[in-house]
Amino acid sequence: MTEFRSIDAATGAPSGPVLAVDGVAQVEAACAAADAAFDAYRATDRHARAAFLEAIADEILAIGDDLIVAACRESGLPRARLEGERGRTMGQLRLFAQVLRDGAWQGIRIDPAMPDRAPLPRPDLRMRMIPVGPVAVFGASNFPLAFSTAGGDTASALAAGCPVVVKGHPAHPETGALVAAAIARAVAACGLPAGVFGHLVGPSQELGAALVRDPRIAAVGFTGSRAGGLALAALAASRPVPIPVYAEMSSINPVLLMPAALQARGAALGTAFAGSLTMGAGQFCTNPGLLLAIEGEGLDAFVAAAAEAVAQAPAQVMLTAGIGAAYRDGVADLAAASGVTQLAAGAPGEATSCGAALFQTTAAAFLANPALAHEVFGASSLLVRCADEAELLTVLRGLEGQLTATLHLDEADGDLAARVLPVLERKVGRILANGWPTGVEVCHAMVHGGPYPATTDPRSTSVGSLAIERFLRPVCYQNIAPALLPPELRDDARGDGAPRLIDGVLRLA
Amino acid sequence: MTEFRSIDAATGAPSGPVLAVDGVAQVEAACAAADAAFDAYRATDRHARAAFLEAIADEILAIGDDLIVAACRESGLPRARLEGERGRTMGQLRLFAQVLRDGAWQGIRIDPAMPDRAPLPRPDLRMRMIPVGPVAVFGASNFPLAFSTAGGDTASALAAGCPVVVKGHPAHPETGALVAAAIARAVAACGLPAGVFGHLVGPSQELGAALVRDPRIAAVGFTGSRAGGLALAALAASRPVPIPVYAEMSSINPVLLMPAALQARGAALGTAFAGSLTMGAGQFCTNPGLLLAIEGEGLDAFVAAAAEAVAQAPAQVMLTAGIGAAYRDGVADLAAASGVTQLAAGAPGEATSCGAALFQTTAAAFLANPALAHEVFGASSLLVRCADEAELLTVLRGLEGQLTATLHLDEADGDLAARVLPVLERKVGRILANGWPTGVEVCHAMVHGGPYPATTDPRSTSVGSLAIERFLRPVCYQNIAPALLPPELRDDARGDGAPRLIDGVLRLA
Repeated sequence: MTEFRSIDAATGAPSGPVLAVDGVAQVEAACAAADAAFDAYRATDRHARAAFLEAIADEILAIGDDLIVAACRESGLPRARLEGERGRTMGQLRLFAQVLRDGAWQGIRIDPAMPDRAPLPRPDLRMRMIPVGPVAVFGASNFPLAFSTAGGDTASALAAGCPVVVKGHPAHPETGALVAAAIARAVAACGLPAGVFGHLVGPSQELGAALVRDPRIAAVGFTGSRAGGLALAALAASRPVPIPVYAEMSSINPVLLMPAALQARGAALGTAFAGSLTMGAGQFCTNPGLLLAIEGEGLDAFVAAAAEAVAQAPAQVMLTAGIGAAYRDGVADLAAASGVTQLAAGAPGEATSCGAALFQTTAAAFLANPALAHEVFGASSLLVRCADEAELLTVLRGLEGQLTATLHLDEADGDLAARVLPVLERKVGRILANGWPTGVEVCHAMVHGGPYPATTDPRSTSVGSLAIERFLRPVCYQNIAPALLPPELRDDARGDGAPRLIDGVLRLA
Repeated sequence: MTEFRSIDAATGAPSGPVLAVDGVAQVEAACAAADAAFDAYRATDRHARAAFLEAIADEILAIGDDLIVAACRESGLPRARLEGERGRTMGQLRLFAQVLRDGAWQGIRIDPAMPDRAPLPRPDLRMRMIPVGPVAVFGASNFPLAFSTAGGDTASALAAGCPVVVKGHPAHPETGALVAAAIARAVAACGLPAGVFGHLVGPSQELGAALVRDPRIAAVGFTGSRAGGLALAALAASRPVPIPVYAEMSSINPVLLMPAALQARGAALGTAFAGSLTMGAGQFCTNPGLLLAIEGEGLDAFVAAAAEAVAQAPAQVMLTAGIGAAYRDGVADLAAASGVTQLAAGAPGEATSCGAALFQTTAAAFLANPALAHEVFGASSLLVRCADEAELLTVLRGLEGQLTATLHLDEADGDLAARVLPVLERKVGRILANGWPTGVEVCHAMVHGGPYPATTDPRSTSVGSLAIERFLRPVCYQNIAPALLPPELRDDARGDGAPRLIDGVLRLA
């Protein structure tokens, strides 16, 4: 048994209660409980699970201001941001409640028997999606509520019918403990087995490794660094029974400033860009870390306005001392890199805070040095000035996989955009126009994902209702008598509201 | 440049034309062509792709009897089986043509803009599924048509919009070349780029390894041995950019003989079992390699009838000399294993043929020796006699992941079946009642997949229309103007027949 305390992000000093840490013995207990709870939990009616998710949302709100205060202190993020994040967290839980009630996630397919088919009769075949098993969730430091203990991974796994074991993020242990207790109250209030939700406390990486290695864990959700995500993916692949890891990792989120848009509003775009860059101290997965543009007058106006806005940006408290140190190193590396010049520096930080930074380089220098495309987590961005469209396309084709790509364009940029879009589709999960990537809407059509190394699995998303599919797998029932069939697969379930694919034809309720 | 020839499965002698093998240089050429073809191919209208799949089916039929003759000679399988397999192959291609026209695979989701939403407006968000990129396909020895060059993996990947590079199976090179030429004719007739389909010829494992390592390959489909599938999965995971591998590997397909069913028709079940076991020389992924039953009179009747039928079974030509040798080794290992007794042996084989084998053991012996649960590819099966329900459940819980589980039951077995089903759901992809697992229907509700090591990815199937999802990933378009949106995502595409999820509500065309 060891102890640790959370750190006040702004002061760097220990704060909050002393937490007892039970080492890897926690993992055994939580995974045993999750496995024991799995069959009972997955057998719950989908409407009951929806009510459970809503109960979690209500319990989180019922914590009251203590939750916001703890999250502010542990993350250094401002109150308004965390109040918004609490709303987002509750919204995610309620979205999955709605998804559960709609029922399409069950993937019901029925191919009725054809007893008279020649040369062989066709049996009765019915498919549904079932949950994969207990899921391990690793929350993110930068969203202590919406991507953490009761965040999107937890909500989607619980919706799918999977018990969840969260490895609490050591940057916000008190916030995590408050949310975990709220979930536990919802579990009890809904009459579910306690093992439906487990919460591991402690700062050690051994804890997370033991969790991913546990044979009862069937899948992993992770949001964080590339190094962390790849380490978990390697662990998961080396198990006697490998399991999928959904790690959302690094992205520099290229923003393409197109000629006509720059010509029309270069300065305004520069100011707006700085706002997106510095929001939340730049600590967003979708932070615009790379700008791409073709040389021209409009670009000069953009640069002038962006540099001015960045120079005026105040230093901001970073989530953790480690993130602050990594940011400073990344900025120093860019400043020292060959062919890179610094366009602007925000107010210098103090011990726990950092200033924004804007750099520029040429396409040739960017292509020559892959390190320039590495993520610098925080409010740092690099403008790559391209001589012409060919150079722009070469840079785009050479990029790693990304969460997002942004186009700023006017109507006159349409032809260029049409040539760029097929390149971007192969690189990213979300393409947006005339906005900034830092807003990630929680809805049905969202993709917060993308090709490696943005994530370890581009076939899914970690935000939005499609995320439930990560934790499901299909099972087929052949000639199983109605009394033994899962209720949702019986003929008399037609009125339960879920769509069904019958003999290949989609039927609504 | 080297040369090789196919082997006549029945005589073991080289046969057919001498084939020139261009080594791994083939891989570079095929992957470059596939990559170059990808954007044009994925941009084709889905109705055009449907017509292309149908053209492949027509071209395969147009090869005529030469195809059946070559496949018979190379596989040793009988003519009727291969004529049926040709029909299955064409049926798969036509099923995916239907899936393409229906359009649901596009996964269209639209969350319309909410410009007046507070505190922030919602942008317009639209999602579709796009193909992942060029796919490498490794066909199976045991289905030279339906799981090979133009088999289910090829059909589903082409349907998804992915160019395909097939590594031709060295056990049926002439069959593969005939089918590859038919696909190439369909590519040309449909005016598609030649790189949409590539075919690599040669016996070496280096060829397949180079294909999986090629950076332009985005996913792998494989049907074959556990060792082969795991080797490819390890290669794919070790790439600078890892890619998914859908390997359908080994399964012993447990068959549970329940007490009342045994009591009512033990002898008839024994005879029917032997028919399933020996079909196609037992060389099916879904061959019933494990029987489970609780001791009783009905079981004795089953054993007597099964043993008699197996003893009378003629030896059958095996697909390859290697498969025959591995089968003989597996049978010898079972015969020598502690606690295992041989119940019956079919007619002994000659050089290229093998006889069926039936063994029995106790649950205790089975649980004590994990090797008894290894697949013996061919007509060998092991009966595990359980003392009671508890022992049966212990055996089931200890099994590895499987493609199928079969229940033979009567109404009086219902309570036991209800207790067994949740255990089976966690182990297999398909559960069937009162039939035999060797028939795998090509339809919408089929799952030919299952937990590791039955496959490397239980979230999918390699047979049936759901297989298309393996080769797709979601992309979100945010505030993209209609002129730049993919046609299927525009508002005016509502009449194109594909269902859409609009603001979370499913709408049919």
